[in-house]
Amino acid sequence: MGEELKQVRTHEVIGTLNKGIGRLEQEATAEQIAGRGWNLLREDLSLPAAVLYGDKMEHNLRWMQGFINRYEMKLAPHGKTTMAPKLFDMQLEGGAWGITLATAHQVQVAYAHGVRRVLMANQLVGKRNMEIVAEMVADPEFEFYCVVDSALNVDQLATHFRERGLRLKVLVELGVPGGRCGVRDDSQLKDVLDALDRSRGVVDLCGAELYEGVLKDEESIRSFLRRACELTRHLMTEGRFARTPALISGAGSAWYDVVAEEFAAAGFGDAVEIVLRPGCYLTHDVGNYETQQQRILKSNPIAREMRSGLVPALHIWAYVQSIPEPELAVMGMGRRDAAFDSGLPKPAVHYRPGSASPQNVPAHWETTKLMDQHGYLKIAPADDVRVGDMIGFDISHPCLTFDKWRVLAVVDDKFDVVDVVKTYF
Amino acid sequence: MGEELKQVRTHEVIGTLNKGIGRLEQEATAEQIAGRGWNLLREDLSLPAAVLYGDKMEHNLRWMQGFINRYEMKLAPHGKTTMAPKLFDMQLEGGAWGITLATAHQVQVAYAHGVRRVLMANQLVGKRNMEIVAEMVADPEFEFYCVVDSALNVDQLATHFRERGLRLKVLVELGVPGGRCGVRDDSQLKDVLDALDRSRGVVDLCGAELYEGVLKDEESIRSFLRRACELTRHLMTEGRFARTPALISGAGSAWYDVVAEEFAAAGFGDAVEIVLRPGCYLTHDVGNYETQQQRILKSNPIAREMRSGLVPALHIWAYVQSIPEPELAVMGMGRRDAAFDSGLPKPAVHYRPGSASPQNVPAHWETTKLMDQHGYLKIAPADDVRVGDMIGFDISHPCLTFDKWRVLAVVDDKFDVVDVVKTYF
Repeated sequence: MGEELKQVRTHEVIGTLNKGIGRLEQEATAEQIAGRGWNLLREDLSLPAAVLYGDKMEHNLRWMQGFINRYEMKLAPHGKTTMAPKLFDMQLEGGAWGITLATAHQVQVAYAHGVRRVLMANQLVGKRNMEIVAEMVADPEFEFYCVVDSALNVDQLATHFRERGLRLKVLVELGVPGGRCGVRDDSQLKDVLDALDRSRGVVDLCGAELYEGVLKDEESIRSFLRRACELTRHLMTEGRFARTPALISGAGSAWYDVVAEEFAAAGFGDAVEIVLRPGCYLTHDVGNYETQQQRILKSNPIAREMRSGLVPALHIWAYVQSIPEPELAVMGMGRRDAAFDSGLPKPAVHYRPGSASPQNVPAHWETTKLMDQHGYLKIAPADDVRVGDMIGFDISHPCLTFDKWRVLAVVDDKFDVVDVVKTYF
Repeated sequence: MGEELKQVRTHEVIGTLNKGIGRLEQEATAEQIAGRGWNLLREDLSLPAAVLYGDKMEHNLRWMQGFINRYEMKLAPHGKTTMAPKLFDMQLEGGAWGITLATAHQVQVAYAHGVRRVLMANQLVGKRNMEIVAEMVADPEFEFYCVVDSALNVDQLATHFRERGLRLKVLVELGVPGGRCGVRDDSQLKDVLDALDRSRGVVDLCGAELYEGVLKDEESIRSFLRRACELTRHLMTEGRFARTPALISGAGSAWYDVVAEEFAAAGFGDAVEIVLRPGCYLTHDVGNYETQQQRILKSNPIAREMRSGLVPALHIWAYVQSIPEPELAVMGMGRRDAAFDSGLPKPAVHYRPGSASPQNVPAHWETTKLMDQHGYLKIAPADDVRVGDMIGFDISHPCLTFDKWRVLAVVDDKFDVVDVVKTYF
């Protein structure tokens, strides 16, 4: 797998018409771009630009892998966050067990870039989507799991894969009332298990899965996780699993500590492989995930021992393009450039081209509104800020920021562009 | 211009790893794809998919061009909405004067695809962004305008373009208190005009521009427009313009009728070329722009005479992937696939694979929530809907829907895929 991914890293080509990069006369590989000497502060990039801080990403990568290792669990980072095969590569080389994804298209992208173990933490529905997965599953080197929560879907999958002489590995998804997908009760579970009985030899039940992030309070989450553990134990006792060890998987980017604690407390030992799948840790944020991280660093014993935490590793850099009122700087950055669904981008650092180095922004600066291509930054009349100044913004919610960028520049601590990451949304 | 754009149409290549398309073993042109016989209802596309209805887009194109023609004004559709050069091509062939854009990157995309008249209705700020524009402006075939609202920006532009022996055409942008960019008062205006005096022969003032969409009520908008007309007349009298006729430009997608009425009432005659720049009309929506369209069809005399209006021409199609509760269908479509900033996607048509044709959905179906990759559809327990059914959703706000798709399928009235449109966000 490493070899194929390295080939991707070398051969991936960056086109000339992407936003947020420097001058390219023709398509170039990231390696070629890294040799061009672009520097963010020397204004070699067209702003707005999404900028990844390489050292901080690597710190986050090591932190999360270390955390999961301490629990002796497996990490399958949710790749939907970044949809960047080069970052999947980093995560796999860093020790990840596989990559989690959400759709057939996303799996196709990962497979095309050499990823050979995927947990699709979602139902596989529809003819073309099943075809996409069937083509990959025909490759014996490819290990793939998706989830099921209805008898009808199991029957549809069985028909599709039986016709092609293929087998499909699935996990049964548990849900909660008012939640998203997943079986709610024993009656729904029985329907799914009956359908799995009908499709024996085609659709193989390998474990159980849940997404605890639909719940908002810790006690409900712990109780949901215990239900998943009980179910897994029950299905194992009944000899329902076609895989040894069985799989159990949970954990978004907010509650992975609680998931690790509960799954560890279940004491499965070697009988169950536990797969956690946070995705946002690589870049982290300054919104919801930072709030959760503070909670984790206080309450989780392993995190406390690790003596560091995740750090924000992604900025959106933009120019001040107009200061039409003493308390308003209009930024060249909008809803096309940064997530706005769980908090607006927060101004972090301010740089005037030609000056020595970026400075932290005054605490009273605040993004008050985003339009498609503009951001409203509240300033004070006496602030030293002017048209043409550059501001780096922290973001909330990496998922909906990454998907606004086809390429992201990776910079070192001197703001030299040392790599370019390409996304496939 | 037509010739170059046709070459684009022929040569544009669609990659194999895009979401929302059918099976491609290798890169293909849209023409090749049109010949493959893909059909949406036969499930040849991987859902979720963004689907454009070709006939409806062409109706909208003719409607808006007809409306603007009746006012004897020019149409420069805002290309930021779609960022699809193939649609720019349609618009220019349909009679558009030029394309409006918002950023240097967007202008670069349009230029690379053969567009040769651009109004960048935004300030041009930053070294690399100025370089991008300077390279294009060096082409005598390329007619380009951007806007200015500060003396500092005018000075920065003058320095950049003077060093390169180039000239830059600008419009002065007017703004309103509490609005976005644009000069607020005579004192700011005087500063900008003084800077323009200093940069004579380099930065050429060609007219005035405003964006009325920052205001919410018609009377304020009319008053803002009259101010722009007065200013234009005043600057003309003072001999400030380096262009004859002078340019005046306004109009987003919501108030273009009011802008047309006020600019017409100014009675400029041949002395001023009037450029309107709605962008969302091509696909329209069922949200804010539909509300505005209803107002326009009632109140504007020309629209009343035209006896038809804009129609929604874009659906996001997705599968029902789970029905875990009697009143909840979970859709395979989320914030990664559809705009959610001014209303959630509205279920419009329902199709069960293998059945005769799509049916309108019951009036009580409603999207209640979007997550990154999922949508919550409220249904009633007795509704005939099941996992694997396809639902086409109308959208609110085309801009933030287009930017979630790298390719959109164009279908005819039989849902055959007859073209593919590529975007460059």
